[in-house]
Amino acid sequence: MSPKVESPQGYQSFVTNVGIKDQTKDFVCILSTVSCQVVAMFTQSRFAGPSVVLSREHVKDGQAQAIVVISKNANVATGISGMADAQEIVLAAAQSLSIPPEHVLIASTGVIGRRYPMEKIRPVVTSLKEKMRPADFEEAAQGIMTTDRVPKFMNVRVGNAVLTGIAKGVGMMEPNMATLLTFFFTDAAIEGAAFKSIFRRVVDKTFNAMSIDTDTSTSDTALMLSNGLAGEVDKGEFEEAFEKVATHLVKALVKDGEGTTKLLEVTVETAKDHAQAKRVAKAIINSPLVKTAMHGADPNWGRVAMAIGKCSNEIDIVPEKTNIRFGEMEVFPRQVGEEMLSQLSDMMISDEIKIHVDLNIGNGHAMVWGCDLSADYIKLNSEYTT
Amino acid sequence: MSPKVESPQGYQSFVTNVGIKDQTKDFVCILSTVSCQVVAMFTQSRFAGPSVVLSREHVKDGQAQAIVVISKNANVATGISGMADAQEIVLAAAQSLSIPPEHVLIASTGVIGRRYPMEKIRPVVTSLKEKMRPADFEEAAQGIMTTDRVPKFMNVRVGNAVLTGIAKGVGMMEPNMATLLTFFFTDAAIEGAAFKSIFRRVVDKTFNAMSIDTDTSTSDTALMLSNGLAGEVDKGEFEEAFEKVATHLVKALVKDGEGTTKLLEVTVETAKDHAQAKRVAKAIINSPLVKTAMHGADPNWGRVAMAIGKCSNEIDIVPEKTNIRFGEMEVFPRQVGEEMLSQLSDMMISDEIKIHVDLNIGNGHAMVWGCDLSADYIKLNSEYTT
Repeated sequence: MSPKVESPQGYQSFVTNVGIKDQTKDFVCILSTVSCQVVAMFTQSRFAGPSVVLSREHVKDGQAQAIVVISKNANVATGISGMADAQEIVLAAAQSLSIPPEHVLIASTGVIGRRYPMEKIRPVVTSLKEKMRPADFEEAAQGIMTTDRVPKFMNVRVGNAVLTGIAKGVGMMEPNMATLLTFFFTDAAIEGAAFKSIFRRVVDKTFNAMSIDTDTSTSDTALMLSNGLAGEVDKGEFEEAFEKVATHLVKALVKDGEGTTKLLEVTVETAKDHAQAKRVAKAIINSPLVKTAMHGADPNWGRVAMAIGKCSNEIDIVPEKTNIRFGEMEVFPRQVGEEMLSQLSDMMISDEIKIHVDLNIGNGHAMVWGCDLSADYIKLNSEYTT
Repeated sequence: MSPKVESPQGYQSFVTNVGIKDQTKDFVCILSTVSCQVVAMFTQSRFAGPSVVLSREHVKDGQAQAIVVISKNANVATGISGMADAQEIVLAAAQSLSIPPEHVLIASTGVIGRRYPMEKIRPVVTSLKEKMRPADFEEAAQGIMTTDRVPKFMNVRVGNAVLTGIAKGVGMMEPNMATLLTFFFTDAAIEGAAFKSIFRRVVDKTFNAMSIDTDTSTSDTALMLSNGLAGEVDKGEFEEAFEKVATHLVKALVKDGEGTTKLLEVTVETAKDHAQAKRVAKAIINSPLVKTAMHGADPNWGRVAMAIGKCSNEIDIVPEKTNIRFGEMEVFPRQVGEEMLSQLSDMMISDEIKIHVDLNIGNGHAMVWGCDLSADYIKLNSEYTT
């Protein structure tokens, strides 16, 4: 058991059910008692909803103080009325919390194409101030869930400060710049430029290196608030701590992916550069034939070779130099000997499978995470009715 | 009943079982009695096998006379020995048929990473001449099948000539320049430049506009032989006939796709240009969430909007101008009224679903074909053991 880590200082939260879809928690507000530095990344979807449009605008000055999250309704493809609803919520929250509207962020996740039930949200958002309590981030992680089976939450200490991360998402997940919804809160003080560059570096290595099903949500939002109340921390330590929390959340997201039975980790090494390594790794992790083979515990390296082959513009990749391993066992070009087959089978039935590829071109490497493709993914997504 | 169309003149075939995997036909040779014009497109996979490498070389002079196809073994990722095997087959066929080796093409499909059983192939390929009979293309269509449930074959008349097409493929199918295996034979005489440009245009509109599962085979080959024995034909009529056969084969391939229960046809209109229309159409047809929704007969247009949104570089695409229809029924932005819901449901349960998108940007349009994603796809591909 690791010792319990407390929350970062100066944050308050309120989590409740306003009845958007069912009786589960669907409304979250998190407030810092003082203004925060903020950095964020949003979906690149051309169908981004009003929550993304508004929050993108509100993080521009690098300052924020509160975030409102509504789950079970994405408020996407709802036209002008949907934008008016989002603006009303932000304004009401700002008034109730006595902070400037441009310091309030909003995020949403759930069904697309349906307006918020404003008559249910309005009474809550206009009376937030009296409801705020010392922050309970685990409860907030529950409040942002849609069809997630478990809340995703982690706390780590960095010097005198604490960094907390929460996330949600189970499908429509190949984040492009950010993942479905993930929020980080810290009381560490970090100088602005470093804060931004650390955020981008870590998000690129973690959330932008995962894929559940190649689909990209209209609501992806990743953001981090820092109120600085715990004073300055070492930047290197902070980045390490952030990567630790982000990696934990990414693995938790993938394991809870729709129909997931196995976590896949694909590492591509000795590529021309990082970008090439990531393209190849993504081609493997996104191949339905690789995903189904892993689901069936079949060490079918031919499908991994096929997936590498799909990177048809990478003319420096040649089969003659390529090496494929499952775990530590080479399967191509040298094939697994008879005496090792049972060991290979044992590895394939475990719930975490590691695929390594060496391209023997240069020094680039990348690691990505994904999941197998199971009949349950089909069942969940074909029986889900709008 | 359409009248029976005979085969093109001057072709012979031999189809047999050499016992590569089981008792089904797995060896095909097709010969023209005179040398042919040839045009071909091959997989762009970086793991293309020796069959693709050799045939790509042999079509360079624009002339060919025979093709050998081996099914149930792709001869891919088999190294130097695999290349030697392919060369031996081509050489033996050429000697037996008394034609130059560079006029023999070879294609292969099946398991990756295993060498041909040469001791079974050798006796057949060295004694081809005496076995050739007037061409039976339907039997050839059977001979190239792997896990296909039905042979794909079509004959059409063009002036005094005939054009025949055969194809195979059920998975690992998002052809990039050609589809798994498809061969066309004609006795029409067409001038070389037109022959090539017609071939490329039609393949781009048909085989390169389909996707079963986003995976690209290492063995994709599309080629057409023309021996000219029936004399010249009208180029426009020829292109029309070719497109008709190719479209028929593409639809047959998609309907026989692994686990397919529905054919999806996605049309994107009023895009900036054809390329943009095709990118958007491919994003829709390849989205697992759209495919599972169609499998579940759910008119979930939110997932279509999400898939369009994934084209994040297409900054001229905006939700406000976009229009989505299922069949002829608009679902976004105007939603289907209560009185039409039963009609919409009826349409969704049919085995062919048409999705139309208007981007209202320009005059580009594209049509692509794909299929739903079912639990059977998972079953077939996770239980297939190497």
